[in-house]
Amino acid sequence: MAKAIPTREEDYSLWYNELVKKAELAENSSVRGCMVIKPYGFSIWEKMQSILDRMFKDTGHENAYFPLLVPKSLFEAEEKNAEGFAKECAVVTHHRLKTSSGDKSKLVVDDGAKLEEELIIRPTSEAVIWNTYKGWVQSYRDLPLLINQWANVMRWEMRTRLFLRTAEFLWQEGHTAHTTEQEAIAETKQMLEVYADFAENYLAIPVLKGVKTENERFAGAVDTYCIEALMQDGKALQAGTSHFLGQNFAKAFDVKFTSQQGKLEHVWGTSWGVSTRLMGALIMAHSDDQGLVLPPKMAPIQVVIVPIFKGDEQLAILDSKVAEITKLLRDKGITVKYDNRKTHKPGWKFAEYELKGVPIRMAIGPRDLENNVVELARRDTKEKKSVAIEGIANYVSELLEEIQSNIYYKAKAFQEAHITKVDSMEEFKDVLENKTGFVSAHWDGTTETELKIKELTKATIRCIPLDNVQEEGQCILTGKPSKERVIFAKAY
Amino acid sequence: MAKAIPTREEDYSLWYNELVKKAELAENSSVRGCMVIKPYGFSIWEKMQSILDRMFKDTGHENAYFPLLVPKSLFEAEEKNAEGFAKECAVVTHHRLKTSSGDKSKLVVDDGAKLEEELIIRPTSEAVIWNTYKGWVQSYRDLPLLINQWANVMRWEMRTRLFLRTAEFLWQEGHTAHTTEQEAIAETKQMLEVYADFAENYLAIPVLKGVKTENERFAGAVDTYCIEALMQDGKALQAGTSHFLGQNFAKAFDVKFTSQQGKLEHVWGTSWGVSTRLMGALIMAHSDDQGLVLPPKMAPIQVVIVPIFKGDEQLAILDSKVAEITKLLRDKGITVKYDNRKTHKPGWKFAEYELKGVPIRMAIGPRDLENNVVELARRDTKEKKSVAIEGIANYVSELLEEIQSNIYYKAKAFQEAHITKVDSMEEFKDVLENKTGFVSAHWDGTTETELKIKELTKATIRCIPLDNVQEEGQCILTGKPSKERVIFAKAY
Repeated sequence: MAKAIPTREEDYSLWYNELVKKAELAENSSVRGCMVIKPYGFSIWEKMQSILDRMFKDTGHENAYFPLLVPKSLFEAEEKNAEGFAKECAVVTHHRLKTSSGDKSKLVVDDGAKLEEELIIRPTSEAVIWNTYKGWVQSYRDLPLLINQWANVMRWEMRTRLFLRTAEFLWQEGHTAHTTEQEAIAETKQMLEVYADFAENYLAIPVLKGVKTENERFAGAVDTYCIEALMQDGKALQAGTSHFLGQNFAKAFDVKFTSQQGKLEHVWGTSWGVSTRLMGALIMAHSDDQGLVLPPKMAPIQVVIVPIFKGDEQLAILDSKVAEITKLLRDKGITVKYDNRKTHKPGWKFAEYELKGVPIRMAIGPRDLENNVVELARRDTKEKKSVAIEGIANYVSELLEEIQSNIYYKAKAFQEAHITKVDSMEEFKDVLENKTGFVSAHWDGTTETELKIKELTKATIRCIPLDNVQEEGQCILTGKPSKERVIFAKAY
Repeated sequence: MAKAIPTREEDYSLWYNELVKKAELAENSSVRGCMVIKPYGFSIWEKMQSILDRMFKDTGHENAYFPLLVPKSLFEAEEKNAEGFAKECAVVTHHRLKTSSGDKSKLVVDDGAKLEEELIIRPTSEAVIWNTYKGWVQSYRDLPLLINQWANVMRWEMRTRLFLRTAEFLWQEGHTAHTTEQEAIAETKQMLEVYADFAENYLAIPVLKGVKTENERFAGAVDTYCIEALMQDGKALQAGTSHFLGQNFAKAFDVKFTSQQGKLEHVWGTSWGVSTRLMGALIMAHSDDQGLVLPPKMAPIQVVIVPIFKGDEQLAILDSKVAEITKLLRDKGITVKYDNRKTHKPGWKFAEYELKGVPIRMAIGPRDLENNVVELARRDTKEKKSVAIEGIANYVSELLEEIQSNIYYKAKAFQEAHITKVDSMEEFKDVLENKTGFVSAHWDGTTETELKIKELTKATIRCIPLDNVQEEGQCILTGKPSKERVIFAKAY
């Protein structure tokens, strides 16, 4: 098989990279750190977009679009935010090229077209959006603003990996403004729940919900809520964040409203986002050494039908039977692809759709037809079974649901088996090295200790779980008193 | 009325700008030439996107995503294309900011982070996409590539206008690759038909289909096909283009395939696009002095219901009747908004939804309820009529269809009345000045004459219509022989 990929055991990192490329999800481009999302990969992202977009609209949000470029002076306005992103900014300095005087086939930057003020390609849009909100908000009647944007953003990362960390990525960023602190906090939490719901019920990825420590907080936020997923190599992946911004951006951009009582007050803000990084999570959470394993709700093709035939006459008979079956499946809302190409053998097709993670493969040959059956193969468990054509649509529909939940429960069992309580640094290191996964430990609450532990072990605090059990204990590093455990892990 | 806009008669250009702002479609941003698309405007763009996306997929295309930035050396590869866009390029030269040594609250460009090679923000993606296709195509089996991208692009325009000409705009760009010239030409024409179908049957804008002259051709294309629409001020607007690229980009980026006969050949290409400019066309083609007029198929809200009431008791009764009506309408797939806010008077609401172009306004008060009727007001003709609640859903559904076709036929009649045949420069100038619109005239086929006419009259050749009548004539400027008329107009 030309398309075989390394096993996870051999080299997890290479397995992931090769899988992304061989399954035609994405590839590196000619621009450092920027990827090309290929049609098959993009069709999965489109499914993510359409489901999330529906969830955002169902919770009262509208889409809008704000400029790609941010003037440097605006970007500076919220100091912590600016400081957090300054080192990763792509900067536009000129607005014209001209023909090189030396070589007429070459273009050079036209020094006569230098911008008076440099423009930053948005690493995130708080600055440009809050500057706009200033003009939209006068009275409490103008609030809340519940707006989302689907966009590309750019962060000049030094070490990049397809989907997981790229200089340019696609994402959605919600930006809301409210009259009260409570309402903004409720919005922040609501969007965290939306993300958790999406991760668990669509991506089939169980997540821990929690709050970030000060050190891991979004630059400019008062609180950052997050969902943390666990990959098969035992490393954590931050899958979505929802920030309570307090009045930080309202103050930086002077966004005020007249309250019902006639008082002039700063508004309260939130922002929240998920990105094409979720593609990386989806791939790494479920896939195996044969390729992608897609939960049916995220699969661009849910059922692929492969005819087994010799000669045109057999194929014609199968074509007509498959047309009937296809109609029955599509009437149930199932996405079906019939691959009756003669240029490729069934074995090649089997491997190809396995690599691409199609949840159900249906094979049908002349003998199956005689017996009024088809052969169904599940991608997740690789089980094969002969199933009667009669009632096939119901059977497949239920099987898809079963696959969706099986993939989730498999990941859930893995996650549960990989949350380990430890009470000493020795145990902590041992679990990180040998067992991997989330480690639940006491911590003294200081950034100093957090950074020291990171330095010693490469593990970071992923989150302080919501509704965390309060329990007396001692920090694993300093022995100082602690009131609750927090979740550590090595992370993507 | 705080929100009144100037009339078209008074100042067409100001009317347009004020309409775009007051109807909350878009506004200027803090970045020169870049706009903010507001939620109401964006919801119309989302409708455009979803309809077009369906049409592209129905014709076999898939979506993908390519990088925002193009290395200068790649951009140079197709010389004509590079030359055509070089003067409008936003150039990224650095990848980091640092704190100013003078003022710690300021950021400055970090000279230590100068890029080895400058990166251009895509003005269009042929360069980056054809450079990628090189890796995707080996054999005729890999073709055709039928790919579309929804993206933001940037062209540093000197004079900008909301939607019509902005430095950053949103668009879709299709990029296809084929084994034969005929197949690529057929694709180019097919996509032109898709655009024409969309313009006429959804936007309700009649268009002329044609081919551009060499002078107006897309930089790098062999032929540019276009649809041209006519605005109410008699100026033309290019609403979509579809380019036959020949082998130009295949040669520039060395994209070759092995044919069925085993020969190595360059592939044939097309590209085609429409942008947020269509928003400008939609607004200018139909709207009036009271505001937007939206064809029902493009209206985010198709029916707005306004209760006429005194006191909570009356409102409660109306609320419950409207709930019934709303359900009936929604079951027919009609988009309904019920505006029962007590903070605004009915008169204010009437003006507001008129401004926003909602096709049907339904008013209902206690007396209507007694008589089992509602009052319907059409946005397009401003007719009002009392209509029985019984059978209301069917009535509204048919009325929406009638409004859609009425808006189209009104624009069609205007277009037909504004295509004028002329046979002399005198007539040509007279029509351009006084009657305006499309002018059909003979031209000697040279770029020199075309540019001279533009210099004298500001009119450009919009297109050579498809299936143009062949007729002997003389160029209106030079008197030289001509075999067909072409369409001139002043244009946006």
